[in-house]
Amino acid sequence: VDICSIGGNAATNAGGLCCVKYGVTSDYVLGMEVVLADGSVCRLGSRLSKDVAGLSLTKLFVGSEGTLGVITELTLRRLPQPAVAGTVVASFASLEHAARAVVAITATFRPTMLELMDRATVNAVEDRLRMGLDRSAGALLIAQADAGADLETLAGVCRAHEATEVFHTNDPDEGDLFVHVRRSALPALEAQGSVLLEDVGVPMARLPELVERIQAKAVDWGVTIAVIAHAGDGNTHPVIVFDPEDEAQSRRARAAFEAVMGLALELGGTITGEHGVGRLKRGWLASQLGKATMTLNWRIKQALDPGNILNPGALFDPSVQC
Amino acid sequence: VDICSIGGNAATNAGGLCCVKYGVTSDYVLGMEVVLADGSVCRLGSRLSKDVAGLSLTKLFVGSEGTLGVITELTLRRLPQPAVAGTVVASFASLEHAARAVVAITATFRPTMLELMDRATVNAVEDRLRMGLDRSAGALLIAQADAGADLETLAGVCRAHEATEVFHTNDPDEGDLFVHVRRSALPALEAQGSVLLEDVGVPMARLPELVERIQAKAVDWGVTIAVIAHAGDGNTHPVIVFDPEDEAQSRRARAAFEAVMGLALELGGTITGEHGVGRLKRGWLASQLGKATMTLNWRIKQALDPGNILNPGALFDPSVQC
Repeated sequence: VDICSIGGNAATNAGGLCCVKYGVTSDYVLGMEVVLADGSVCRLGSRLSKDVAGLSLTKLFVGSEGTLGVITELTLRRLPQPAVAGTVVASFASLEHAARAVVAITATFRPTMLELMDRATVNAVEDRLRMGLDRSAGALLIAQADAGADLETLAGVCRAHEATEVFHTNDPDEGDLFVHVRRSALPALEAQGSVLLEDVGVPMARLPELVERIQAKAVDWGVTIAVIAHAGDGNTHPVIVFDPEDEAQSRRARAAFEAVMGLALELGGTITGEHGVGRLKRGWLASQLGKATMTLNWRIKQALDPGNILNPGALFDPSVQC
Repeated sequence: VDICSIGGNAATNAGGLCCVKYGVTSDYVLGMEVVLADGSVCRLGSRLSKDVAGLSLTKLFVGSEGTLGVITELTLRRLPQPAVAGTVVASFASLEHAARAVVAITATFRPTMLELMDRATVNAVEDRLRMGLDRSAGALLIAQADAGADLETLAGVCRAHEATEVFHTNDPDEGDLFVHVRRSALPALEAQGSVLLEDVGVPMARLPELVERIQAKAVDWGVTIAVIAHAGDGNTHPVIVFDPEDEAQSRRARAAFEAVMGLALELGGTITGEHGVGRLKRGWLASQLGKATMTLNWRIKQALDPGNILNPGALFDPSVQC
C-alpha cells in the first residue's frame, strides 16, 4: 500500500531511499505533542531549527515505538525540493562486486540514492514488470545524485569495479522508472511466497562480507534469501521467501531470520537499521546493546510508563526485564 | 581561545556558523560511551549511520549538559569537505532591513552561512581589525553558498531588500577574511567592557521584529546591546556590553539579559538556541517548556541520577523542582 502514517513514521524513526544523503525521520522532527502514560500532555521541541532548552526529548520520543507516549502532533522541518541530476544503473557479476563498488562510491561523495538488488530480486521484479531487465546480472545498482559531475564519478567507480554494464540517463522519467523498479522489489518478492523481511545494517566496509555470507549461508540454511539494500547506508533488507504451507521450510525461514541478525552483530552491525525492534526482534536487543545499555533503556521506560501500558511487549522483552 | 572540547561540544549540542545548512552537533554524533551516576558504563548508538535498535539514547545524551552522565568517548559522522562557491557581503540601512532580507533568502534556498552583525558590532570589529569596514552601515550580512547560482540569487534578494551595497567574491581568501570579521565580533565587543552573551532564537518570520524590539528596548533599559546573529537559523546573540565597575549599570545589564529572554518567548522563540541552559538560564526553563514538559525533564533526571551528583545546579533549578 502506498500510505504511511506520519505518527508511525516518527515513532519508528523510519528511513527510506534518500537517507544516504538526506538523513532519517529524526533529522526532520522539530517538535511534537505527546500524551504520556499518566495522561499528561507535553509539548516537546518547538518550531525552531535550533533550540537546546532542556533535555533533547523530541529526539528521545522519535523511534521510541510507542513505548514512552502517544505522539499526537508533529512539527517537521522542510527542505527545498532536492535536485536530481540524473540516474545511473549498473549491473555486476555478483552482489559482492556491487557491494565493493558501493564502498568505493560512499568513500568519495554522497549520492542522493544508492540502492542494491540481487539477482533473485531482479528476476522477481522482471516477472512482474516485464520491462527487459537483465535476468543474468548478479546484482543491479540504482543510484542518483544531485550534481552531474557526481554521476560521472559514480559511473566511473562502477566501471572500475568491473560493472558489466553502466547505463546513465538525465531523463527524469527514465530515472523514475528505475526508482519504480526498486520500489517494486518487495511486492514482487511477496508475490512468490510468504516473506520475512530483515533489516540489518553493518559498517560500510563490512557490506561486501555481509551480503556474501548471507548468500553462502542461505544454501546451508535451506532457504531462499533475496537481498535488497539501501546500500549507501550499509542498511540491508535480506528477504527470506518461503512457503507458509511447508512447516519445515517455515521453521528454517525463522531460523535463518535469526541467523542473519547474529551475522550482522558479528560484523559490528545492528539488528535493525530502520524498521525498529517491535516484538519480532525484542529478544535480540540486549545482545546488541549489552546489559548496561539495556538496563538504561528499561530505567527510562519505567520512569515514564511504570504500569507498562504503552505498546506493551514492543521493544522491551518482558521475559528479560533488567 | 581557538579551542573547543569535543565532549563539551556534544554535551551542549553546540552550533555555529554552518548549522543553517549542515545542522548541529546532534546530527553528527553516531555513538558514545557514557558513565552514569551509578558508575555503570554504557555504549550508546554505534558506528552506523542508520541504527534504530532501542531508545534513541545517543540523541538524549547530546545536549544534556552533563546532567545525565559523563561522555567519555564519541563516534562522529564525517562528511566530505563542503564546497564554498563564494561569499556575498551586503550592507543595509538598518538591522530590520537586513533581517527581512534573511527571511526572504531562507524562504528560497539554504545558504551554507548567513551571519548578521549590527552597526555597534561592525564598529567594534573595525576598531580592532582596521580593515575599512563601512562604519555607517546599519547592518552587515555575510553569506556563503555551495553553488554559484545560489550566490547570484542571494545577491539579488539583498538588492531587492534595499541593500546599500552588495559585494560578491569567489576568491576563497577574500571570503575567509569576511568569516574572520564575523569570528572577531565577540572578542571585539569583549574589548569594550564586560559582556552578557544572549543566545535567544525565534521562528524565522519573527526575526525582524526581535532585532527591532531589542534595539528599541536597549534605550529604555539604559544599556548597550550589540546584535550578532546566526541569522539563517533565527538564532541571535544579543551582546549586552557594560562596565562591571558601575554597579547600577551592571544591574541594568542583568535585567536586560532577562528581558531579552522574555521577548524571545513572547515571539514564540527559545531562551537558548545553541549555548544551553546552564545555571544562568535555569530559572527561565520552565517558562519556556511549561509545567508538564518540565516535569518530564525532571523524571528522566531523577531516574538516571537520583542523588543529583551529575553537574548539580545546571539545567535543573533546585528551587523549582517539580
